[in-house]
Amino acid sequence: MSEKHLQTGDALPPYPGKLRLFAMRFCPYAERSVLVLNAKNIPYETVFINLDHKPDWIFYYSPKGTVPALEYEAGKGIFDSNIINFYLDEKYPEPPLQSADPLRRAQDKMLVENFSGAQAAYYTAAFNSQALQSSHLETYQKGLDLLQKELETRGTTYLNGNEPGLIDYTIWPFLERFQALPLLGKTDFAIDKSKYAVLVTYIEAMKNVPAVKSYYLPPETHAKFTESRSKGDPDYNMLDTSAVCCMRPRKKKE
Amino acid sequence: MSEKHLQTGDALPPYPGKLRLFAMRFCPYAERSVLVLNAKNIPYETVFINLDHKPDWIFYYSPKGTVPALEYEAGKGIFDSNIINFYLDEKYPEPPLQSADPLRRAQDKMLVENFSGAQAAYYTAAFNSQALQSSHLETYQKGLDLLQKELETRGTTYLNGNEPGLIDYTIWPFLERFQALPLLGKTDFAIDKSKYAVLVTYIEAMKNVPAVKSYYLPPETHAKFTESRSKGDPDYNMLDTSAVCCMRPRKKKE
Repeated sequence: MSEKHLQTGDALPPYPGKLRLFAMRFCPYAERSVLVLNAKNIPYETVFINLDHKPDWIFYYSPKGTVPALEYEAGKGIFDSNIINFYLDEKYPEPPLQSADPLRRAQDKMLVENFSGAQAAYYTAAFNSQALQSSHLETYQKGLDLLQKELETRGTTYLNGNEPGLIDYTIWPFLERFQALPLLGKTDFAIDKSKYAVLVTYIEAMKNVPAVKSYYLPPETHAKFTESRSKGDPDYNMLDTSAVCCMRPRKKKE
Repeated sequence: MSEKHLQTGDALPPYPGKLRLFAMRFCPYAERSVLVLNAKNIPYETVFINLDHKPDWIFYYSPKGTVPALEYEAGKGIFDSNIINFYLDEKYPEPPLQSADPLRRAQDKMLVENFSGAQAAYYTAAFNSQALQSSHLETYQKGLDLLQKELETRGTTYLNGNEPGLIDYTIWPFLERFQALPLLGKTDFAIDKSKYAVLVTYIEAMKNVPAVKSYYLPPETHAKFTESRSKGDPDYNMLDTSAVCCMRPRKKKE
C-alpha cells in the first residue's frame, strides 16, 4: 500500500504476496476494480500512482500506463477495468457479480456502452469547460434517462438485481462524480430529484453498499480534486489514502 | 438474406424465424460475428446494409447504426462484435471458443486491445493515405510482432490452441485485409515472409479453417472495394453476396 501517489523515480514497493491494484485515488476506472475487489472480499493492496509523472514500472503492467492494472502474481499484470473485473468475477466466483443468463450479460455490456457518451460529457463538463456545448448536456441527460429507464424496466434495487453486480460497480464511479458538477458551477448538470426520482433512489442505495461505502468520496472532495486538476496541478495527495481507502478485506454487509 | 446491400428507403425483410445478422460484406467487425456463427454452425441469415445510406431500421438494432448487429429474436438486437461474440459463445456453448481459464481469457482480451493500434494504422494506410506517417508503419509492425511473439509463446497452431477460437476470429478479419495493402501501393506494409514466418504459417492455417474459408475474400477483392471507397463511391454490391456468403450452416471440418 502506498500512502502517497508514487511518481517518476519512486521505487516499486516489494510484491506483497497477494493481489496488488495500481490505481489513482480519484480515477473512476480504477474505482471500478476497487469496488469489485471489495465486493468479493479478496485480500489486496493498492498502489496509487501520479498520472502526470508516472513511475516507469507502471508500463510493465499496463502498456499505455493507464490505471487500473492488477498484479495477479509477482511481475505479471492485467490492465483495463473491464478486463480486470471479468477476470476477478471468473477467478473468484463468490459472490457471482453477473447474471447467469447470456442475454442479460450482453444487455449489461450494451448498457455500459450506451452510457459511455454521458461519461465523456461529464469529462468535458468537469475538465474542459471551454469546449462545453449544449449537445454535451443533452448526451449527459440521455445517459441519466437511460439508467432510469433501465432501473424501471428491470424493477430491481440495483441494475444487477436485488444485489449489486458488475454492471453497478462499472457505472457507479461516474454517478459518484456526476454529483460534483453543480459544485463546479455546472448547475445544469445537477440530477433533478423529481425528474430522476428512481435514479436518485438507486444512487442512495448504492452509497450504502459496503463495497462502495468504504471507498466513497463526497461531491465536495471530487470537486476539490477536479479544480486542482483543471488548474494544471492535480493535488493527488490531498487525502490520507491510508485512512480512506479500504485496503483490508471487509465482510459483505458488515 | 439480402442479395444487395439494403439502403435508406429499403424495407426490412420479414424476420426469418432464426438469428439474423446485420452486416456489410467488407466490414471486418461484421466478419468477426459471421465467423463465430459459422464456427458454431448456428443457423442464421445475413442482411447486408449500405453504411453510407443506412436504412432507418438499423438504428433500432444498433443505436449508432454500426454493424454487426444481431437480431436474436424478432425486433430485438445486440450490437458490437465483441458483445455479440461473447453472447454467442455463452448461449451456444458447442464448440466452446474460449479457454476455461480466467487468466487466459483476460490475456486474450488484452491481446485484442494491444493489437488495436495496428488495426487503426491499417485504416489510415488503406483509406486515409494523406495522413499516413512513419509512426503508422511502426505501430502496424508492432502489431505483427505482437502476434508472432504470442504465437511463438503459446506454441499452438492457433492463438486459441489447437482449434481456432474467439481470439482468432476477432483478429483474423484484419489480417485478411492487411494483405490488400501492398496492392494499394503500400508496399512497406507487406508482411515479410521470412521475418514473419510464424505469422505467415498462421495466416495460411486460418485461411483453411472452414468458418473462415466460406467467407474469405482474396486481397485483390479487398483492394478493389477499398479503392472504390477511397474515391467516395463504395461499391457495396460488387459481389454477388448470395454466392460468396455462407448463409447455410456448415459442418465443422466438412
